[in-house]
Amino acid sequence: MAAPSKATNLQELEETVSRLSGHKGVEAVLMLNRDGNILVSSGSTNENFAPPKQAKLIKQLVETSQKFIHALDPNDAVSFVQIRSKQHEIMLAPHNDYILAVLQDPLVASAPAI
Amino acid sequence: MAAPSKATNLQELEETVSRLSGHKGVEAVLMLNRDGNILVSSGSTNENFAPPKQAKLIKQLVETSQKFIHALDPNDAVSFVQIRSKQHEIMLAPHNDYILAVLQDPLVASAPAI
Repeated sequence: MAAPSKATNLQELEETVSRLSGHKGVEAVLMLNRDGNILVSSGSTNENFAPPKQAKLIKQLVETSQKFIHALDPNDAVSFVQIRSKQHEIMLAPHNDYILAVLQDPLVASAPAI
Repeated sequence: MAAPSKATNLQELEETVSRLSGHKGVEAVLMLNRDGNILVSSGSTNENFAPPKQAKLIKQLVETSQKFIHALDPNDAVSFVQIRSKQHEIMLAPHNDYILAVLQDPLVASAPAI
């Protein structure tokens, strides 16, 4: 796993991942650095959830979203990406040093985890 | 502009675009086919909004989202993608024949347009 930057230490990230993965309906929580390397992973209750593969797609989603926003306003930045399907809800919160990703079952989850 | 498929005729799409672009805070509405070609465009109150460029990014966002969902469940499909930044909110609703995209100012928009 990649080392987190000084600004946000690993313990803080691990605490966040552990807290979020305890929420009702949450299937997996990933913390990536902005290169898409996994810093912390909660493991997953969904056997198809393959962190390395999903991490690559998460990085692409955040980068493409950022391109879209920058084309509108170079000073603006993506704060949240949400993808919904019948079975799943993925929420991505990009920060300076990392990307927080939460996968949850929208039918079970009580409130947005992030 | 590309021709819509028989299943969804152009007039229906134009009516949807015109109705949505009238919502408070909506800056632009685009209807694309699944290849990312523009079927209908409302024009935009945001001078940086360049439909052809944004259409390409919208197609990429929907495709990457679909890959993410299919990796979890090949029978599931993306129903909604939302991107938030300080200044903008983009909502994408993929359908069989087309992708509906709404760009709005989150601080002005009263309720989700789609």
